[in-house]
Amino acid sequence: MSQYDNVSVVKKANVYFDGKCVSHTVVLADGTKKTVGVILPSSLTFNTGAPEIMEGVGGSCRVKLKGESEWTTWGEGQSFNVPGNSSFEISVAEGDAYHYVCHFG
Amino acid sequence: MSQYDNVSVVKKANVYFDGKCVSHTVVLADGTKKTVGVILPSSLTFNTGAPEIMEGVGGSCRVKLKGESEWTTWGEGQSFNVPGNSSFEISVAEGDAYHYVCHFG
Repeated sequence: MSQYDNVSVVKKANVYFDGKCVSHTVVLADGTKKTVGVILPSSLTFNTGAPEIMEGVGGSCRVKLKGESEWTTWGEGQSFNVPGNSSFEISVAEGDAYHYVCHFG
Repeated sequence: MSQYDNVSVVKKANVYFDGKCVSHTVVLADGTKKTVGVILPSSLTFNTGAPEIMEGVGGSCRVKLKGESEWTTWGEGQSFNVPGNSSFEISVAEGDAYHYVCHFG
């Protein structure tokens, strides 16, 4: 499914890390909030509040969760889980862009 | 109105100019297509196919339409029109981000 139907979308973007991560907030009919976004070539560290599931919808990234020693590559059609109150490093290669949906809770 | 309700949103972003412009496509209930996006600090030239109305929803930009000699500043709550099959230069200052909705046709 390449799109969400019957949702609300916030017009103003969420801009993080000088624009290396840009997302828009989507609210489903049942009130569930998600973000649809993209991470541009960079190496970033994200902190989580709620647990997150990052669903890849385009491009790829490498991820290292807090406490892990190995990087894992994630791409389109794959999802990875991040615990709440934690962090993860994410790296997107030059020429790529990692498109994602972030699911919370 | 800070959001669109009862719309479809395409999960994958539109990325232009190495990520200096990122948008997501939104389709209203009546089939009308719009994009919600952000332009990061840069000076870019956009070409238009269909005529566009750029509605500012955050931040500001300076714009010079093809054939114009003066720059005009546009901000939140303001809209400017761009003819079809034309172009415009847009400049966003360091530290700012221009959030917009693009209306076509």
